Amino acid sequence: MLAEIITIGDEILIGQTIDTNSAWLGNRLNEYGIEVIQITSINDKKSSIIKALGEAEKRADLVLITGGLGPTKDDITKKVLAEYFECDLVYDKSAQDNIQTILKRLNREILQINLDQALVPEKCIAIQNSKGTAPGMYFEENNTIYVSMPGVPYEMRAMMENDIFKRLQSKNSSYAIEHHTITVVGIPESHLATSIEHIENSLPDYIKLAYLPHLNLVRLRLSAKSIEHSVEELSTQIQEVFNQIKMIIGDSWFEGETRLSAVVGESLVTNEKTIGTIESCTGGFIASKLTEIPGSSAYFKGSLLTYDYETKVSLAKIDQNLLNEVGAVSKEVCEMMAKNALDILEVDYCISSTGIAGPGGGTNEKPVGLVFIGLAKPDGSVMVEKCQFYGTRQQIVERTSNKALDMLRKAIKS
Amino acid sequence: MLAEIITIGDEILIGQTIDTNSAWLGNRLNEYGIEVIQITSINDKKSSIIKALGEAEKRADLVLITGGLGPTKDDITKKVLAEYFECDLVYDKSAQDNIQTILKRLNREILQINLDQALVPEKCIAIQNSKGTAPGMYFEENNTIYVSMPGVPYEMRAMMENDIFKRLQSKNSSYAIEHHTITVVGIPESHLATSIEHIENSLPDYIKLAYLPHLNLVRLRLSAKSIEHSVEELSTQIQEVFNQIKMIIGDSWFEGETRLSAVVGESLVTNEKTIGTIESCTGGFIASKLTEIPGSSAYFKGSLLTYDYETKVSLAKIDQNLLNEVGAVSKEVCEMMAKNALDILEVDYCISSTGIAGPGGGTNEKPVGLVFIGLAKPDGSVMVEKCQFYGTRQQIVERTSNKALDMLRKAIKS
Repeated sequence: MLAEIITIGDEILIGQTIDTNSAWLGNRLNEYGIEVIQITSINDKKSSIIKALGEAEKRADLVLITGGLGPTKDDITKKVLAEYFECDLVYDKSAQDNIQTILKRLNREILQINLDQALVPEKCIAIQNSKGTAPGMYFEENNTIYVSMPGVPYEMRAMMENDIFKRLQSKNSSYAIEHHTITVVGIPESHLATSIEHIENSLPDYIKLAYLPHLNLVRLRLSAKSIEHSVEELSTQIQEVFNQIKMIIGDSWFEGETRLSAVVGESLVTNEKTIGTIESCTGGFIASKLTEIPGSSAYFKGSLLTYDYETKVSLAKIDQNLLNEVGAVSKEVCEMMAKNALDILEVDYCISSTGIAGPGGGTNEKPVGLVFIGLAKPDGSVMVEKCQFYGTRQQIVERTSNKALDMLRKAIKS
Repeated sequence: MLAEIITIGDEILIGQTIDTNSAWLGNRLNEYGIEVIQITSINDKKSSIIKALGEAEKRADLVLITGGLGPTKDDITKKVLAEYFECDLVYDKSAQDNIQTILKRLNREILQINLDQALVPEKCIAIQNSKGTAPGMYFEENNTIYVSMPGVPYEMRAMMENDIFKRLQSKNSSYAIEHHTITVVGIPESHLATSIEHIENSLPDYIKLAYLPHLNLVRLRLSAKSIEHSVEELSTQIQEVFNQIKMIIGDSWFEGETRLSAVVGESLVTNEKTIGTIESCTGGFIASKLTEIPGSSAYFKGSLLTYDYETKVSLAKIDQNLLNEVGAVSKEVCEMMAKNALDILEVDYCISSTGIAGPGGGTNEKPVGLVFIGLAKPDGSVMVEKCQFYGTRQQIVERTSNKALDMLRKAIKS
């Protein structure tokens, strides 16, 4: 089954909204063996929508449409669909009930524009929206399945998971597709590519290797698609290729495309260790990454964010003389931060960061992107790495966080 | 001038990468008066690329292509462009020099696949890449401008800013386009829409109003496009409409689509006040938002992240008996956190957060999404708001942060 995703809304074309829906849909459809062949983003003019629907149905068996179902006047998807499929808009009873339940729960007055969200084209099956007021719509017309959903990501996702995937599964004739991804940490893409080139060259036609660089991580994805092999066979072959790759890249990788914070969290739980941070230039970013994982309270205890000299002295007992002498962005201060915070927070591991995230504040000696990262370990010893990162303020903060979490990952492992 | 953006890469279609490039391009092109009429994402098969190029040149005067220029075998854009425009690939001298300079600076060995990145189709102008090794390509063929750029966001952005926009500006016959956005905080989209419906109904044809909800913020955008009015006239008309809207929504808005953290930062600077946070359920997220703004060291001093009972007691001197009695997620503890941290951090304002971000840890009495947010003010008084948020762990954390920063915004203003 081939799918096309159509996202409707001026906000995507003028860049006010980033299209995360298509990425989510692409990912999940792929897992169901449905190949997305195109994503098309168009404005919310009637003519654009009708043209895109017509073109998509030539390419795809399944057309997933998001956006344009809100209560406001700029949302016209529903009306255009009714026109495209030549039918009227009618009130759907269960959608009406859903709207009333939700608005009552939120203690909000029910307005006419809320109630009108229950209007759907007569030819569709209305799809329950468990997270919001706009119902989805499911059509089987012109030998194609069309699904129209709200643009609000969690509403769309719930609709797909609770309803649409079940409908699609019964329609989709399955052929073997298998993917697997590992994440490589700290090896530049071109070096990685050269060192595993011979492996890539020996791959059969039906296995593809893709490199997905993201800051100082590279996700390495093997995808196999075949009519002559079973999913199990493809899975075995992919694993064999990855085994060859892992022989070459040593311990600079972890399984899957999981977040580094999840990998680290799991190994903290396994080893029954706790973690804290003391952050300067990252301003809480490393802690917020560590705590983005559900259940992180099992290992994360707390942090000191010491952004200025005063808090470094008052909260983390950093020697004022040392600060004056070598400056906050130094190996010595970074080391003392980690060491002191390990004791203050009473944790097994403590990450420290101090650097210049920019864009201002750099000097010749200490340029923007210079960051010291410390890691105090259970035995009280501290390792410090001096890094020179490039990029925007946000990128420097993220690269620091990735590097720090990878130092932690390796330290726990060894 | 009408533009189409084509993004090339399986990683977008299978959802491994979110397409942030198109959003950035859409936004910047719009500011240059170039209207994006479609964004098309396709896989990196030759046939898909050639088909998309052909379709785009029927719709658009300008086709911007991103992706598929990396050094690895899955990157075929360059070869396909040479075939599409019927020419050979040749080495570009300045691209070669650039590659050597960058790799020397990074102390990396120069590999053949690095050097081959300097190959470009003979018919193009090679565009310097100041941030990476892959050159861009600029073609004027078939009455259309084609620009091919790397998919790495900061490389593509630098190329557009340093080179492409200058080339486009000389080609683009300008007609009047004007946009303005305000961000509304804490009013649900449907209520906002109903309360300003009469204003929306009275808008002339050439002014459009769009609602862009994001968590508990709604960005409200007025766009005007006209051949009969000047940019100045459109700007005045848009301002008049916004004045009417602001009369209705009171102080629940701020100018632009700036981040709330930037708005708050600016008013802290203006009022010469400092800020700190003490965070439990948000795990440093609020601090990392406050510090994402360049120059935030002028007002942000530090934070205590007290994730467990022990650090609440040891770092923030929260009364152990109080914790045992009412629990960490309570008005009383939230209030004491803000009050104590105001003194410990020696700041003018201090935000506190304590709640249940989920997905686990909820009870009937204290369900997932229950969050107390405190704000201690310069006079030592503390206000606490009890909130019930919905959504994923990350959404609850972000909503808490938005709410907290808006409490701070209003407090500083009054």
